[in-house]
Amino acid sequence: MKVFLDKIPFELDDIIGTVIKLVVIIVAFSIAVPLGKKMISATINKMSLTRKTKASRIKTLDKLLLNIYSYVMIFIFIGTVLSLFGVSIGPLIAGAGVVGLAIGFGAQGLVSDVVTGFFILLEQQMEVDDYVTVAGIDGVVEEIGLRTTKVRAFDGTLNYLPNRIIENVANHTRGNMRALVDVGISYYNDVDQAIGVLERVCENFQRDERFKDGPHAIGVQSIDGTNVVLRVIGQVENGLQWECERDLLKAIKVAFDEANIELPLNYQVIHQQEQLG
Amino acid sequence: MKVFLDKIPFELDDIIGTVIKLVVIIVAFSIAVPLGKKMISATINKMSLTRKTKASRIKTLDKLLLNIYSYVMIFIFIGTVLSLFGVSIGPLIAGAGVVGLAIGFGAQGLVSDVVTGFFILLEQQMEVDDYVTVAGIDGVVEEIGLRTTKVRAFDGTLNYLPNRIIENVANHTRGNMRALVDVGISYYNDVDQAIGVLERVCENFQRDERFKDGPHAIGVQSIDGTNVVLRVIGQVENGLQWECERDLLKAIKVAFDEANIELPLNYQVIHQQEQLG
Amino acid sequence: MKVFLDKIPFELDDIIGTVIKLVVIIVAFSIAVPLGKKMISATINKMSLTRKTKASRIKTLDKLLLNIYSYVMIFIFIGTVLSLFGVSIGPLIAGAGVVGLAIGFGAQGLVSDVVTGFFILLEQQMEVDDYVTVAGIDGVVEEIGLRTTKVRAFDGTLNYLPNRIIENVANHTRGNMRALVDVGISYYNDVDQAIGVLERVCENFQRDERFKDGPHAIGVQSIDGTNVVLRVIGQVENGLQWECERDLLKAIKVAFDEANIELPLNYQVIHQQEQLG
Amino acid sequence: MKVFLDKIPFELDDIIGTVIKLVVIIVAFSIAVPLGKKMISATINKMSLTRKTKASRIKTLDKLLLNIYSYVMIFIFIGTVLSLFGVSIGPLIAGAGVVGLAIGFGAQGLVSDVVTGFFILLEQQMEVDDYVTVAGIDGVVEEIGLRTTKVRAFDGTLNYLPNRIIENVANHTRGNMRALVDVGISYYNDVDQAIGVLERVCENFQRDERFKDGPHAIGVQSIDGTNVVLRVIGQVENGLQWECERDLLKAIKVAFDEANIELPLNYQVIHQQEQLG
Amino acid sequence: MKVFLDKIPFELDDIIGTVIKLVVIIVAFSIAVPLGKKMISATINKMSLTRKTKASRIKTLDKLLLNIYSYVMIFIFIGTVLSLFGVSIGPLIAGAGVVGLAIGFGAQGLVSDVVTGFFILLEQQMEVDDYVTVAGIDGVVEEIGLRTTKVRAFDGTLNYLPNRIIENVANHTRGNMRALVDVGISYYNDVDQAIGVLERVCENFQRDERFKDGPHAIGVQSIDGTNVVLRVIGQVENGLQWECERDLLKAIKVAFDEANIELPLNYQVIHQQEQLG
Amino acid sequence: MKVFLDKIPFELDDIIGTVIKLVVIIVAFSIAVPLGKKMISATINKMSLTRKTKASRIKTLDKLLLNIYSYVMIFIFIGTVLSLFGVSIGPLIAGAGVVGLAIGFGAQGLVSDVVTGFFILLEQQMEVDDYVTVAGIDGVVEEIGLRTTKVRAFDGTLNYLPNRIIENVANHTRGNMRALVDVGISYYNDVDQAIGVLERVCENFQRDERFKDGPHAIGVQSIDGTNVVLRVIGQVENGLQWECERDLLKAIKVAFDEANIELPLNYQVIHQQEQLG
Amino acid sequence: MKVFLDKIPFELDDIIGTVIKLVVIIVAFSIAVPLGKKMISATINKMSLTRKTKASRIKTLDKLLLNIYSYVMIFIFIGTVLSLFGVSIGPLIAGAGVVGLAIGFGAQGLVSDVVTGFFILLEQQMEVDDYVTVAGIDGVVEEIGLRTTKVRAFDGTLNYLPNRIIENVANHTRGNMRALVDVGISYYNDVDQAIGVLERVCENFQRDERFKDGPHAIGVQSIDGTNVVLRVIGQVENGLQWECERDLLKAIKVAFDEANIELPLNYQVIHQQEQLG
Repeated sequence: MKVFLDKIPFELDDIIGTVIKLVVIIVAFSIAVPLGKKMISATINKMSLTRKTKASRIKTLDKLLLNIYSYVMIFIFIGTVLSLFGVSIGPLIAGAGVVGLAIGFGAQGLVSDVVTGFFILLEQQMEVDDYVTVAGIDGVVEEIGLRTTKVRAFDGTLNYLPNRIIENVANHTRGNMRALVDVGISYYNDVDQAIGVLERVCENFQRDERFKDGPHAIGVQSIDGTNVVLRVIGQVENGLQWECERDLLKAIKVAFDEANIELPLNYQVIHQQEQLG
Repeated sequence: MKVFLDKIPFELDDIIGTVIKLVVIIVAFSIAVPLGKKMISATINKMSLTRKTKASRIKTLDKLLLNIYSYVMIFIFIGTVLSLFGVSIGPLIAGAGVVGLAIGFGAQGLVSDVVTGFFILLEQQMEVDDYVTVAGIDGVVEEIGLRTTKVRAFDGTLNYLPNRIIENVANHTRGNMRALVDVGISYYNDVDQAIGVLERVCENFQRDERFKDGPHAIGVQSIDGTNVVLRVIGQVENGLQWECERDLLKAIKVAFDEANIELPLNYQVIHQQEQLG
Repeated sequence: MKVFLDKIPFELDDIIGTVIKLVVIIVAFSIAVPLGKKMISATINKMSLTRKTKASRIKTLDKLLLNIYSYVMIFIFIGTVLSLFGVSIGPLIAGAGVVGLAIGFGAQGLVSDVVTGFFILLEQQMEVDDYVTVAGIDGVVEEIGLRTTKVRAFDGTLNYLPNRIIENVANHTRGNMRALVDVGISYYNDVDQAIGVLERVCENFQRDERFKDGPHAIGVQSIDGTNVVLRVIGQVENGLQWECERDLLKAIKVAFDEANIELPLNYQVIHQQEQLG
Repeated sequence: MKVFLDKIPFELDDIIGTVIKLVVIIVAFSIAVPLGKKMISATINKMSLTRKTKASRIKTLDKLLLNIYSYVMIFIFIGTVLSLFGVSIGPLIAGAGVVGLAIGFGAQGLVSDVVTGFFILLEQQMEVDDYVTVAGIDGVVEEIGLRTTKVRAFDGTLNYLPNRIIENVANHTRGNMRALVDVGISYYNDVDQAIGVLERVCENFQRDERFKDGPHAIGVQSIDGTNVVLRVIGQVENGLQWECERDLLKAIKVAFDEANIELPLNYQVIHQQEQLG
Repeated sequence: MKVFLDKIPFELDDIIGTVIKLVVIIVAFSIAVPLGKKMISATINKMSLTRKTKASRIKTLDKLLLNIYSYVMIFIFIGTVLSLFGVSIGPLIAGAGVVGLAIGFGAQGLVSDVVTGFFILLEQQMEVDDYVTVAGIDGVVEEIGLRTTKVRAFDGTLNYLPNRIIENVANHTRGNMRALVDVGISYYNDVDQAIGVLERVCENFQRDERFKDGPHAIGVQSIDGTNVVLRVIGQVENGLQWECERDLLKAIKVAFDEANIELPLNYQVIHQQEQLG
Repeated sequence: MKVFLDKIPFELDDIIGTVIKLVVIIVAFSIAVPLGKKMISATINKMSLTRKTKASRIKTLDKLLLNIYSYVMIFIFIGTVLSLFGVSIGPLIAGAGVVGLAIGFGAQGLVSDVVTGFFILLEQQMEVDDYVTVAGIDGVVEEIGLRTTKVRAFDGTLNYLPNRIIENVANHTRGNMRALVDVGISYYNDVDQAIGVLERVCENFQRDERFKDGPHAIGVQSIDGTNVVLRVIGQVENGLQWECERDLLKAIKVAFDEANIELPLNYQVIHQQEQLG
Repeated sequence: MKVFLDKIPFELDDIIGTVIKLVVIIVAFSIAVPLGKKMISATINKMSLTRKTKASRIKTLDKLLLNIYSYVMIFIFIGTVLSLFGVSIGPLIAGAGVVGLAIGFGAQGLVSDVVTGFFILLEQQMEVDDYVTVAGIDGVVEEIGLRTTKVRAFDGTLNYLPNRIIENVANHTRGNMRALVDVGISYYNDVDQAIGVLERVCENFQRDERFKDGPHAIGVQSIDGTNVVLRVIGQVENGLQWECERDLLKAIKVAFDEANIELPLNYQVIHQQEQLG
């Protein structure tokens, strides 16, 4: 506290000098920062032309470098301004004792963020525009920073996730996906007939280009309290799984209607009984 | 304990002198604090006129600076009053041993708050008036302080959230949002007819200015125990998604009524059976 | 252990002297403590007359000062008595080694309590008589102490909450609240008619003084398995939201009865079917 | 290990001497301990006659002092016996290094217990015979010790709770309690008539001495899928809330039967429909 | 590693000598250990004859002493064998640095076990043969060791619980227990009649020796969606509560059958309705 | 990093020499390791013949010793290879500073594993082939290592459990088990008749050798919303409880069918009612 | 900060020199890295031909060595580049004080990853292509790295799991698996007849090569509210359990249809009752 008070520039000269310096610094930075950002983007773009890297990788690197650049500049700025007022960061950070301890514990989350972020980038666990599930959030990656990852959810919400809460990265944009449809039929239908109908539906889809490994009706998945569940699975191009599942569902519904196969409503068998009580 | 007792001013002169000093300090602060607050607000407002910053950013900065100013003044005040009684904060904080350890651990939450708050502000994860979900609370941001963020929930409740419990910031005010409506129809309806009706409803809304990417009926989402679910999605301007969903729902209900398409009540197929027992 | 045993006053003189001293201390404290409490309350009350502070703020400060005063007195008392037996607290607390470590960890909760309590008070997150939700407890604040906050639940239970378990303070006594009523109607009713009825009900309430922003029927909120849900919302004076919701509900029920609009019972559409099995 | 082995008294004289000393110590303690307990109880009882303290407070203090006394005696006993074998506790506890560290961490729970227990007692959060909810256990407090609190649950189970797992003390024995009864009526009943019946029932109870603030029918609490819920609340003397709620419930049931108001059974509206499939 | 390798006895003489010593040690211990166990049991049994201690307490002490004895012997054995190979435990445990730190943290659970176990025994929170609920396990205590408590569950499973996971000890073998029976009747029954029947059933049981405080029908506990719940409670001897509840249930069922009072089946009131759609 | 780089053998002689040494070491170990394993197994088997230890205990020891032997050999191997490249493990582990700290914290799980494993083995909480529930996994123990325990689940999955996640060991292979069957009957059946039938079923099973304490029908366990539950329990030989329960169930079902006692279907009492609305 | 600024090469010569060096390093690494990878793969493949190791083990080792090689190269690269700018990593990591503390805590997750990964590999808990459940993720292992394990889920999602979140490894590719089918039949069916049908179905499958221990109908598993559950189990070759269960289910459904055995629909016994109310 005392240190701080001593440094307050009570004399007019000091104040004017400090203000002028402050203005100069602010002007310098407000010119330097956007300039640097343009240079980074330009360099990245040029490199991306001469090399044959994936577009998503380029995007990831572009955003990452801008992100790191911003942090470095902001910290240099804060350091410069503070040194203007005679406060140097070094000893403040290195200060042992209670303050240092508290800072050490408090900043530990920050280090975790950076370590996790570093390995996400190094191991290319995700790239910008990948569709992922991280920390319980489904969505498309917008930016992977050293400290924070931005994920745009399906409904348009933008999530800012500190990297340390990202444990398992479930990346849905790596290789083909499976389309899986479970349909229940009522107990009173013939199972073989129903599977036959499903197989005819599948044959049509096997000619569909979106399917890499044509859908197959693989049999009776389960028999539960209300229906006999049949399963159809196939392998489709990445990103088309939902569309394919919707098309399969509609085709099956139509085919079942034609074949007079019932979907499992709430059947109830009624025993009309004499009063016993 | 002993230190404290020694400092209790038992002699009358001391008491009078201390009281006078105390009064002077209180008066000084009660003049200085509101003055400083006005100056900060005035400066911010002037700057906001000459520069082309977003209104929400200005608001955020205004509230943040007032917040920081309050903390600084209160700590200077406490330090001044304590020094009046001969207690200096420095050694008390830096004190090693058990007390220091306990304080270090106890204050660790405080440092976490400030570190998290600093990055929320630096990365502009949210601004005042944004609609966000943080730490399980939905609402509009009222103030982002270094230690605490205030979020006004929809029902009017004001939430004070220490920044450290904010992990994932889900910001619903960044870009267009998706309006999504799922409607179930009964098994006995014709799926193609129903989708046709939905498409006609969607066409009307596509001319609606609120929709950036007109609503589309994308097909059969699922078939569950009681109904066939059809999905309609579209992209709308930020903040209008609920209104648009309500309007879509009403239009679909009316259109289904006209087209005699049933919504999925609890159907029950009854098998009247002879008593077997 | 040894230190303690050495201090046990085995000689009679010592015992008598100690007992006398003990009695004097107890008498002194039992006079001083209530006196001090009265002085604090009196001072607070006087100040509250000359200044224009909120009543709840005065109450909060009054209880807080009494609370701090009690702690200080009890610790001075314990210190005095222990020093009578030759035990001084200082080294015991500062003692490094295992005991110190254990105390440091054990007392860490205590420091957390005080730090959290300090900021709750400083940031005025709640005052005495506010209706809040903290640490999963709904209720009216009875006292905010440095270590413990007392909250009276609706059923009369008094909750003692150590401040450290208070993370999010949800304060329901800051500004107007929203009254929100969702009513479901059956699929067979006309949606437009029902909304019309709701709007007439709302018009009556808009003249009600309790409503700051008159209730409006905002449309079809959702269509679920059993009903079409319509929503009415309005802004009311703080504390009157439950009463207003009850009155709205009753008025809507009566209006729907008159307009012959059905509430959503468990409809069941029965298909009498031949036995297939 | 080595220290221990060296101390094993291999020579006969030592063994006999040690055994004799051991017997003397055991005899001394087995006389001293019950004597001390009686003295403590007697002193407490005498004090309770001359002073006007609450009976529950006296009980709490009595049990607490006996509890602390037991701990002190057991530790003195252990210390004495160990010193007999040449083992002194001091260095063992203060021993730095791995053992010390492990003990420090392990014993931290013990310190937490004592710190929490101290504040429960100091702030009088509960007394013996209070009905409380602590750490998820409902019951009547039997003893509050420095380390452990005993709570007798309703079914007769005796719970030993280490104080550190007690966070929120919900004390149900501080001031009047609220009796609250929610009754649902079917949609087909007249709401005004039902509220009228409830009010007549309430009037009878308002003359009941147990009610401090007579029960009132406050209106339509909610309308859900199966019924219209009406609420009755009143303030009753502490401990009588369950009895009063039971009596209210019975009176309301009888009054509704007389007034022909239906309780909400599972109504079902049946639409007999032609087979569409 | 190096220390270990140096000690490997490469010369034949060393090997033979070491093997001989090892055999001697193993033989010595395999004679000494069971002998010691018998002596302990014998001493305990003798003491239990001369003193009037509870049988369960004797059992607890017997098993505890054998348990501690085993640990001590095993550690002396390990220490002796290791010293044979030139490895001394002392420095290994006390070793500062990474190994020491890791051991300190890893062994912390062990210390917690012993501290918790010590207080469970000291405060007699449970004895062998008590029926308890600890750490989510219901069962009868078989042994309370310093580190582990063995609990035999109802289905015959033997649970080994490290003492540190025992927080709340819910002891069901301390004093009388309550037998509690809730029976629901249908809305169409007369409440007064049903309570009358319950009271007659209770009168019969009040003469039953197992009931310490005869069962009473205390009234209407609640009215929920399907029935009116009546409650009967009484105080019974420890251990007989389940038996008594079963007998009460059967007697009430029979009495209700005789009095023609219906138990709450799924009533359904059917409104046959014209098709509206 | 630097240390490592310096050691890279850039000169050809060094490289050749190192490679030769490496080959020698690998060959030596690939001969020594399987040899040692065979010797261990042989020794164990011989000992098991001369002594009367349980087979499961022998198996446990056999697998444990092989497990420990593997660890020791692998670490000696790694140590030897590393020393070949001039890296010595000692200082690396003991290295204070950040690396040491990180290792200390990271390795703490390893120490916990070994400490827990040591006590599981010492206290014989489980043996190979025991059927246990540990860390939420049901299955048969395949191996208990110092660090990891292998449990084979019923469906054939092999679980590798680090010992530290094993808290409560629920061992289902210690003594007789209880077979417990709850059967519900409908309200309309005579309770005494049903219990009579159950008793006759039990009598047959009491002559069954698998039952140690013949099954008994102990009465009405509960009356819930849909049925009257009767309970049958008995004590059976370990491992036969599921088989016995299945046989009991089948016998009871057959006996109830013969005695015309109904199992509790979804009864529904229908009140045909006039339209009130 | 200062250190960093001093090192920025302001003079042109330095800049050019540094750039040239940087280019040389990048070129050298971009040649060396892929070369090294090919050498590793080649060596592994050669070794796999001469030795008789499992294919999955070879795959695991191949991917692991490439993974470790990448890490080593990236760290050497970073170290080289940084040393170019005059920053040496050594002191930065070893730096005591706050920064070191924060890094130590933050990097602790990294060490945990490596320690866990090391033991997963050493104990061969899983290999590439095994079907496992780790950290709640079901799928096929694609790569086991020192820090991260990649698991491909059934739907095609690629999961990156930091090794530290892997506690229990449930490996479904170790030995035969059990196929288990539970089928419910209605109360009105004859249990013996149904078991007979199941046994005939099982006999057919016992001739199936996929079954190692032919399926058996083991009896009545349970009787619940709606059905009598019969269980069939058998042991099948690893990986074929789902297929076998599907085939069993279908065969049982067909056999039950032929034998006129009902699957458990929602039976309802209706008591038509006079209005009592």
